[in-house]
Amino acid sequence: MSRSIDLAVIPGDGIGQEVVAQGLKVLNAVLPQDVKLETKEYDLGAQRWHRTGETLPDAELEALKNHDAILLGAIGDPSVPSGVLERGLLLKLRFAFDHFINLRPSRLFPNTATPLAGRPDIDFVVVREGTEGPYTGNGGSLRTGTPAEVATEVSLNTAYGVERVVRDAFERAAARPRKKLTLVHKNNVLVYAGHLWKNTFDRVAAEYPQVSTDYLHVDAATIFFVTQPERFDVIVTDNLFGDILTDLAAAVSGGIGLAASGNINPTGAFPSMFEPVHGSAPDIAGQGKADPTATVLSVALLLRHLGYEAEAVRIEDAVSADLAERDGVATRTTDEIGDALAVRV
Amino acid sequence: MSRSIDLAVIPGDGIGQEVVAQGLKVLNAVLPQDVKLETKEYDLGAQRWHRTGETLPDAELEALKNHDAILLGAIGDPSVPSGVLERGLLLKLRFAFDHFINLRPSRLFPNTATPLAGRPDIDFVVVREGTEGPYTGNGGSLRTGTPAEVATEVSLNTAYGVERVVRDAFERAAARPRKKLTLVHKNNVLVYAGHLWKNTFDRVAAEYPQVSTDYLHVDAATIFFVTQPERFDVIVTDNLFGDILTDLAAAVSGGIGLAASGNINPTGAFPSMFEPVHGSAPDIAGQGKADPTATVLSVALLLRHLGYEAEAVRIEDAVSADLAERDGVATRTTDEIGDALAVRV
Ligand SMILES: CC(C)[C@H](C(=O)O)[C@@H](O)C(=O)O
Ligand SMILES: CC(C)[C@H](C(=O)O)[C@@H](O)C(=O)O
Repeated sequence: MSRSIDLAVIPGDGIGQEVVAQGLKVLNAVLPQDVKLETKEYDLGAQRWHRTGETLPDAELEALKNHDAILLGAIGDPSVPSGVLERGLLLKLRFAFDHFINLRPSRLFPNTATPLAGRPDIDFVVVREGTEGPYTGNGGSLRTGTPAEVATEVSLNTAYGVERVVRDAFERAAARPRKKLTLVHKNNVLVYAGHLWKNTFDRVAAEYPQVSTDYLHVDAATIFFVTQPERFDVIVTDNLFGDILTDLAAAVSGGIGLAASGNINPTGAFPSMFEPVHGSAPDIAGQGKADPTATVLSVALLLRHLGYEAEAVRIEDAVSADLAERDGVATRTTDEIGDALAVRV
Repeated sequence: MSRSIDLAVIPGDGIGQEVVAQGLKVLNAVLPQDVKLETKEYDLGAQRWHRTGETLPDAELEALKNHDAILLGAIGDPSVPSGVLERGLLLKLRFAFDHFINLRPSRLFPNTATPLAGRPDIDFVVVREGTEGPYTGNGGSLRTGTPAEVATEVSLNTAYGVERVVRDAFERAAARPRKKLTLVHKNNVLVYAGHLWKNTFDRVAAEYPQVSTDYLHVDAATIFFVTQPERFDVIVTDNLFGDILTDLAAAVSGGIGLAASGNINPTGAFPSMFEPVHGSAPDIAGQGKADPTATVLSVALLLRHLGYEAEAVRIEDAVSADLAERDGVATRTTDEIGDALAVRV
C-alpha cells in the first residue's frame, strides 16, 4: 500500500468549499502518522467560468491525471446557464477519466430522518454506469427556436461499457452477505438498450451462481424504494436511471446531506473522484448550515478505493456514532459537525 | 352532450379482465337512464398473441377508431418477450391515436395507506407527454449479441409536440385553485431536449401570468415526491420522466391499486383511452384479489373527458367514501369492492 496520498481538491461552487474543508479535516485526522497527505486545490467552477470563460482547460485536465484521487465538493450556480458546468466540468471529468463505476451506497443510519413510516432497514448500494447512456452529449437540435424545432438525445450503450459495469456489480454483490443483485432498466420500452443490458446481465449471472438476481423496470423500482427498500442489496443500472434512483435513495435514507458517491475507474488508469451526491445549494452557501457528512462519507469511499479500508471503516463508524447522538442535539454548524467527526475518528 | 357512449373495451392480460368488469359495473350504475351505453370487447393481449401472433392488426386498429373512448385493463405477461405487447399494442394505440396527454392524477385519500410518515396532503396531477421522447421506438443495435455491440435509443422531441402538452398543462393549472405548474426535465444534462422544453415552457408561461411556475430536475423531483409532495399542483414532463414519476406518485399516494390514468387526445380526432397505471399482475390474476379502484377512477376520467362531469365526481366521491370506511374492514374481493362502489354512485 502506498504510504502517501496525492489528492486533487476541487471545492467548486456554493457549499462545496465548506463541506470539502470538513472532509479534509476528517481525512487528516484519520490518516496514520506515517501517511504523507499532499493536497492541491483546483480553482474550477462558476467563479472561474465568470472570470475566464473556462470550465476545464486541457492543462488542468492533464495535471489532474497525476493525482491519486480527486475530492470534489459541488458544481453549479444559477448565474451560469444550465449544462455549462455540468457538462463542461463535472461530466467532462467523469468521461475523461473513464469513471465507469458511479458508486452510491445508501444506508439508513439509526436516528436519522427518513420520510418513510416504519423506518425500514435500508442498506444497499447502487452501481450506476458513468460513461454511457443519455449522458454522452450525443444529440442535437434542428431549426432551433422555431415552431419546427426537433431536438434529439441519443442514449449510447455498448457491450464493452455494459459488461464492465455489470461485472463490477456482480463482484460487489458476491462480496456482500446477502449476495443479491438487481438490474434496473426499462427493457419493455427501450428494447435495444434494454436487451443489451438484460442479455449481458443474464450471461454474466451464469458465472456467479452464488448471487441471486432480479430485474425491475425503473418505474417499478421507484415504488419499491419507498414501499420495500429493504429488499435491495446491490443495484446495477444505467447512467440516467442511476441518477434518478440515487437521489430518491438518498431522500429515503437520511436525506441528501448524507449521500456519498465515488466516480471510480477500477483499472487505476485515471484517478477516481469522490463527491457528495448533493448539489451546490447556493441558497445556504457560506452560512455554515451545510451538513458535511456526505463529503466525509465520500472521503471514506476514497480511502477504501486507495486501500485504506480500516480508516474508511473508522470514518463510517464515526458518522454512525455521531448521527446516533445528533438526535435531539441543537443544530450544529458545518464546522462543528466536521470537528465532531474529526475527534471521533 | 351526446346521450350515448360507444365504448371499446380491451380487458387485456392478468387482472385486466377482473378490474375492467368492475369498471363497467360502476359505469353502468352511474350513468343516467337516458344515456345509452354500448360496449364492444376486443380480444387483444398475450393470449391473442400466442394464438395468432398478432398484437394489434390494422382492421382492429381501424375499428377502434370508431368508438367514443377505450377502456383498457392491463397489458403484459411473462410468457411474452418483454416489449412485444408493450410496443405492439399499448404504445401502438397511444401513438396511433395521438394520445399526447397522458393524464395521471395523484391524491392521497383519507385512510389509505402511504409509506410516508406524517401523511402529507397530496393532490397533484402529472401531465405526461405521450407521443414523443424515448418512447418513439427510434433506436437500434449493431453487431447485436457480440462483444462489439452498440445499442442506441433516441429521444425525439419536437416544438409541435412539446408546445401542445405544455399548453394543455397550463390550461389545467389555470383551472385549479392553486394554479401552480412545475416543469420536470433534466436540462443540465439533456441540453438539447431540455432547452426545447424549458424555452417552450417559459414562452407559454408569459401567456398565463396567473399561473406560478417552477422547474425541477427529475432527480430532485423524486426527492420532493417523498419529502414534500404537497408542494406540487400540476406537473408537466416528458414521456419517460412521466412514466417514472407517476409510479412513484402512485406509491406515495395510496398505492398502485388506486392510480388512474387517461391517454387523451384533446382534439377528439381519435378516441381517448383510459387505464389503471398498474400492470397485469399475473401473480394474483384470477384470484379476486386485485383492487379495481384504479380502473373505476379511470372510468371517472373517461366520463369527465366525454363531458359527464357530474358522474365523474360521483365516482370520485364514492371512492373517497368507500376508502374512508375500508379502514379496518376485512379484505374484500375485487367483486365486492366493485359492488360497493356501484351501490354508492
Ligand atoms: C449535476 C448533474 C450533471 C449530476 C448528474 O446528473 O450525474 C448530478 O445530478 C449527480 O447525480 O451527480
Ligand atoms: C407498460 C409500459 C409500456 C407503460 C409505459 O412505460 O408507459 C407503463 O409503465 C405505463 O406507465 O403505462
